[in-house]
Amino acid sequence: MVAAATTPPRGFPDVEYEVRLEGAQREMSEAGLDALLLTTAANIAYFSGFQTQFWQSPTRPWFLVLPKTGKPVAVIPEIGAACMARGWIDDVRTWSSPHPTDDGVSLLAAALTECAGKTGRIGVPMRSETHLRMPMADYGRLRKKKTGVEFSDATDIVRELRMVKSPLEIAKISHVCGLVSDAFEAAPDLFAAGQSDIEAFRAFKIECLRRGVDDVSYLVGGAGPGGYDDIISPPSERPLQSGDVLILDTGCVFDGYFCDFDRNFAIEHASDDARRAYDTVYQATEAGLTTAHPGATCADIFHAMQAVLDAGGALGNDVGRLGHGLGSELTEPPSHAPFDDTVLKPGMVITLEPGMEFAPGKLMVHEENIVIREDGAELLTRRAAPELPVIG
Amino acid sequence: MVAAATTPPRGFPDVEYEVRLEGAQREMSEAGLDALLLTTAANIAYFSGFQTQFWQSPTRPWFLVLPKTGKPVAVIPEIGAACMARGWIDDVRTWSSPHPTDDGVSLLAAALTECAGKTGRIGVPMRSETHLRMPMADYGRLRKKKTGVEFSDATDIVRELRMVKSPLEIAKISHVCGLVSDAFEAAPDLFAAGQSDIEAFRAFKIECLRRGVDDVSYLVGGAGPGGYDDIISPPSERPLQSGDVLILDTGCVFDGYFCDFDRNFAIEHASDDARRAYDTVYQATEAGLTTAHPGATCADIFHAMQAVLDAGGALGNDVGRLGHGLGSELTEPPSHAPFDDTVLKPGMVITLEPGMEFAPGKLMVHEENIVIREDGAELLTRRAAPELPVIG
Repeated sequence: MVAAATTPPRGFPDVEYEVRLEGAQREMSEAGLDALLLTTAANIAYFSGFQTQFWQSPTRPWFLVLPKTGKPVAVIPEIGAACMARGWIDDVRTWSSPHPTDDGVSLLAAALTECAGKTGRIGVPMRSETHLRMPMADYGRLRKKKTGVEFSDATDIVRELRMVKSPLEIAKISHVCGLVSDAFEAAPDLFAAGQSDIEAFRAFKIECLRRGVDDVSYLVGGAGPGGYDDIISPPSERPLQSGDVLILDTGCVFDGYFCDFDRNFAIEHASDDARRAYDTVYQATEAGLTTAHPGATCADIFHAMQAVLDAGGALGNDVGRLGHGLGSELTEPPSHAPFDDTVLKPGMVITLEPGMEFAPGKLMVHEENIVIREDGAELLTRRAAPELPVIG
Repeated sequence: MVAAATTPPRGFPDVEYEVRLEGAQREMSEAGLDALLLTTAANIAYFSGFQTQFWQSPTRPWFLVLPKTGKPVAVIPEIGAACMARGWIDDVRTWSSPHPTDDGVSLLAAALTECAGKTGRIGVPMRSETHLRMPMADYGRLRKKKTGVEFSDATDIVRELRMVKSPLEIAKISHVCGLVSDAFEAAPDLFAAGQSDIEAFRAFKIECLRRGVDDVSYLVGGAGPGGYDDIISPPSERPLQSGDVLILDTGCVFDGYFCDFDRNFAIEHASDDARRAYDTVYQATEAGLTTAHPGATCADIFHAMQAVLDAGGALGNDVGRLGHGLGSELTEPPSHAPFDDTVLKPGMVITLEPGMEFAPGKLMVHEENIVIREDGAELLTRRAAPELPVIG
């Protein structure tokens, strides 16, 4: 269930990228696309192996072009040439960026012309959960240079491909889930009344790093008397108090892959309301685990979990969904929501994240990470305690 | 010079946001804009105080609308309502996101109509170092709903305003620079031959957290015999060896504000070439420090530093610039580059980042963070050692 103590190898063998590219090119051919244009960190990494925290700098645009045949072409700032060349890509074209008048647009246009000629079709992810990571004005200039070319939506091609993880991807996610499961077991030694949320979160970040995660890229949550009212805020300076419910929700990273799960703790004692709410989200997760098997839809998972929350007295939880995909981004498609009829397949890695407002201004949210196997859900996280843990 | 040991207060008083808004509205009035539309983490935080790592999730779009008079309006997913309401914004409008057919577009269009009517002008950052963080298809739908409205570029309004930091912003940057300067002093205890880059980087991350940074959001670099060939890659599994030059370049964060500087270390001994290259980039930084005063331009800084690098035998360094602005993002405008004639003003926080290839495949890069004062540059980082430190 939980990741073995052995660390999986970093990176991927070339065949992993070959399979991804073949998958994309098959769909491109069906859609009549001559090229795919990708601009975001996760999509570029997926097809090239290019991995760097340099994406933190918003200054420079980065482009990867997938032709309908042959390997991808990287069109990137010179500062990334050595890092990109370490990966799978052979054709790396660079310019000195930032450039005041032509920040890669001409070079990109030329690369696209090689794939799509003057009247072809270029796919770009344009719909839900996407954005174009380049200046809008430069995208306008690109389109002006390529007036005969049609730019059309390619959200689904990338979405469908990335949604099903390979065994090597699953091993990385499983590993980081295991490390963070271990870190959460240390909670009684890390958190105590009197400590501020900031101090508690810092102690947890250090614990995760010590245990072997590469980065604690995401850690949000908070605490409040008998329950918290918000799950996306940074930690506050308020000291933890007896009777608080504390939640930490973390996306730690190993070799470019995330976990995304949370744990709840009561400080010194727990109210009956909080215990009941915890039991409700725990049972909702059980319902999700039972429902999550190949052939079921994300909507099925939503309804199975929501029924338990409703029966448990949920006042509401207007966050749009009860879990989502997980991989090289903290959240990925699909969504466990009434509108998402994505059919689960083996290899999909998803979160189960039932949450509810159980009293005015008091939330309880639970989250586990699973992979879909032929015979159902396999936990990647070590299952949370069945009763709200009391610490301190 | 270096941050005092006392931790600056978190957050900002309301007056900080009032001044920022007044500044924007003055420029909007001159540019004839009825509203500004902002979609990225840093821009939304700047005018609202909304701070969360939830931006790691690419699923949901977030919008802030600045009208030509009155306070900004937040149009955001319900999951962020409590976090946004803690800040300066009064008017927070939410929807249940993700939504399959209308992910905030109608709500945003209505908010823009209140500001700009049916034929007004809406400013959006569209040029260098910007992107629109929402699906392109949704932006298309928004424009279709607002066909009489002109969407025009507002890059400069936000750029000019954010480029000059307030005393409270400078205090946060100065604080994190001080903490990380302390962490780098611990290098002899953290790094040693035999240790992999990954282990060295992990030890440094823990050290920074222990000393009080909120997050180590950015840590790149590497090591190589007599010099490294890449400064943006993640750490490798290669063991540090005697004679290696090791660089760590980090953007740690305190209360939403970054440092961005690096330090070089020789493991056990340093080659003469590496020592000379270190001296050259050190002296180039000195030239930058002397040049960086109000009235000088970023191009002036570039030329002053590049002259020293050229005299020191630089083979090249095609990264487009020798430093940049710094604040709530790891890199911000301006750029120390021949094309950037931004005139330095008191309150600007910038990096000085001279680097060069000193032998084929061997780089040396140096970086300090400074604030421009009436009488010149004030270091926020503790000045690097004048000679390449040998450790281990």
